[in-house]
Amino acid sequence: MTVSRRAVLTGGAVAGLGTAAAAGYLAAAPAATPSVAAVPVADFQDIGTGIIPFHGERQSGITDEPPAHGSFVALTLAKGTDRAALGRMMRLLTDDAVRLTRGEPALGDTDAELARHPARLTVTFGFGPGLYRAAGLESPVADLPVFSIDRLQDRWSGGDLVMQICADDALTVTHTQRMLIKDARPFGAVRWVQRGFRRSAGVHKAGFTQRNVFGQLDGTANPKDAEMAAAVWNADHSTQLVVRRVRTDIETWDLLSVGDKENSTGRRMESGAPLTGEAEHDEPDFERTDSTGLPVMPNFSHVTRAHVTDPKLKILRRPFNYDEAPDAQGRPDSGLVFASYQADIVRQYLPIQRRLAEKDLLNEWTTPIGSAVFAVPPGCAEGGWIGERVLA
Amino acid sequence: MTVSRRAVLTGGAVAGLGTAAAAGYLAAAPAATPSVAAVPVADFQDIGTGIIPFHGERQSGITDEPPAHGSFVALTLAKGTDRAALGRMMRLLTDDAVRLTRGEPALGDTDAELARHPARLTVTFGFGPGLYRAAGLESPVADLPVFSIDRLQDRWSGGDLVMQICADDALTVTHTQRMLIKDARPFGAVRWVQRGFRRSAGVHKAGFTQRNVFGQLDGTANPKDAEMAAAVWNADHSTQLVVRRVRTDIETWDLLSVGDKENSTGRRMESGAPLTGEAEHDEPDFERTDSTGLPVMPNFSHVTRAHVTDPKLKILRRPFNYDEAPDAQGRPDSGLVFASYQADIVRQYLPIQRRLAEKDLLNEWTTPIGSAVFAVPPGCAEGGWIGERVLA
Repeated sequence: MTVSRRAVLTGGAVAGLGTAAAAGYLAAAPAATPSVAAVPVADFQDIGTGIIPFHGERQSGITDEPPAHGSFVALTLAKGTDRAALGRMMRLLTDDAVRLTRGEPALGDTDAELARHPARLTVTFGFGPGLYRAAGLESPVADLPVFSIDRLQDRWSGGDLVMQICADDALTVTHTQRMLIKDARPFGAVRWVQRGFRRSAGVHKAGFTQRNVFGQLDGTANPKDAEMAAAVWNADHSTQLVVRRVRTDIETWDLLSVGDKENSTGRRMESGAPLTGEAEHDEPDFERTDSTGLPVMPNFSHVTRAHVTDPKLKILRRPFNYDEAPDAQGRPDSGLVFASYQADIVRQYLPIQRRLAEKDLLNEWTTPIGSAVFAVPPGCAEGGWIGERVLA
Repeated sequence: MTVSRRAVLTGGAVAGLGTAAAAGYLAAAPAATPSVAAVPVADFQDIGTGIIPFHGERQSGITDEPPAHGSFVALTLAKGTDRAALGRMMRLLTDDAVRLTRGEPALGDTDAELARHPARLTVTFGFGPGLYRAAGLESPVADLPVFSIDRLQDRWSGGDLVMQICADDALTVTHTQRMLIKDARPFGAVRWVQRGFRRSAGVHKAGFTQRNVFGQLDGTANPKDAEMAAAVWNADHSTQLVVRRVRTDIETWDLLSVGDKENSTGRRMESGAPLTGEAEHDEPDFERTDSTGLPVMPNFSHVTRAHVTDPKLKILRRPFNYDEAPDAQGRPDSGLVFASYQADIVRQYLPIQRRLAEKDLLNEWTTPIGSAVFAVPPGCAEGGWIGERVLA
């Protein structure tokens, strides 16, 4: 089996996993051998031809290194879309995803030239509570409680199906999104689309932590290496996804001194190091006090409140920045399409989010305006389809 | 003087120019030597550190290879912003642009970490008719006439000042845009922001022609090599910019056969070759007829109507794609932030646009919804500022 050299070289956390999470999309599924040998092998300079194999026990687009562009498309199912219809829908969408991630046009593709540069394209499917209801099944996920800090808008919340489309090229994302939405139309309406970006390929070395629009390193506390499997994957190779739209108030953030910014996050702005450390990945020391007896890591800093020691309780943050047009006064409409993957939202995400909602200095400059949860079914082997074990 | 190796390697049309257009930003201005020697030199794999020198007789961001991301920010000047105030504004914005394009924070930068990756950042300033009025000067540009095909919206039209911000990294564009808008605030309001994308760095070799959201190669007829200087630059190193927002109706475009698409443009979808040729850059043969005596290049195809033979009458198309969120029915809101640079809008752009507005098969699937014109003043030497010869 040939695997994109870039996919491996830049796999970051995945590459370090060896046999665990990496096996999710690299290993041949038992039923059939993924036919990825025929596709071109990318090298580092060839951003357009990088391929991340679609087939495998686990879906792609999760533990692989996030590329430069991401789009989350949520659908509301049409009335009467039953389990059989959902099966047809997922067969169709899976087939599109298989072809497009290989750099081939989808079967109904009317702009074949735009399919030619996969640029590490991944398409990841998640099922919302409403999809399980439509199928007459019990949902493994439930809408989050509304937190006191939330100012949720319907236009950014909920959804029966989500398609996470990620690639290193914006036109690839645009074409893939268009193609998938066209094929999903008989089954539902577009509820929301949230598109965002991270640093472009080639800006950072593999495994870097992205900066958000506040300038903070964002994702430092992600599970690493051997921690990844327990944090993200269930035994059946499923996982769960939280998507939150978090608006940032850059206007007031900009008024803070660097020191105040660092106190609110608990990390240095430049290095991302905790206030008790020297380097980004140093463990914060919550016991250390300064000369006045106060903890060096402020009690209510974001890092202090979000901190998790048990690797099984960590969450994998995989967010994208957004930056829509500012208003006439020049106030930005920007923030984070926060996305986290975890084996169990209730066990892992909720306790963190409850602590943050209760007390987190960063809340002063951030407002959750959208919220959605999805169960992410296992991957599939060639000839299979995503959701086959749930819906068949 | 050190010049980014990537800027030269990927200079495309610019690199071929030798002494003419390339001199615009590479040559030292007479008054002072641009101090670009101190900045890091990029290589192909380092997308983040590529630097395009700001100083020079001509502004950058015009004949250099367009990067992956572009944003056009148009301002409406506040009442009472006079010539002296405009001079202060341009001194301030020039200083921001000089620093940010070097990968240094702007003087008032509150998120210094976000300035560190210029990623071939360029900032290009253009003056609309209203700026000249405010300064008590005669404008070299006038609003375009309204064409029969236009469905112009105020929200995408006009503007007294435009800042074109381009880079290979979206976060760099976001930060630069934020910084420039903040410093421009005392002088005016944001009128519109149009952000778009092209293929990511590393997807194509230098000098490629981008594809638009229709899948068409877009920009094949651009002036090449020695043609560039006469088409783009005036003797005083100024040029003129047209920005048009062109919405594409992908829903109906998708219903066409490939043959019908090719007849409407006059080019092959895959290769971009004219219907009378084999390769993208073959000259179309408008005399050739098929067995029925009809011209092989349809009379009303886009290429036939847009074609220009005199190099001095060509225009330099430098467009970016846009793709906003689709509606509930999944209909895309996408198209082209069309931008063209030419020495003289009236002499070069208007005749082409008149022919296209009158008869161009592509009009069926495209609608201009925004329009703006700007005079682009010469560049400046270190210590100078953009517009100094106009406003000082």
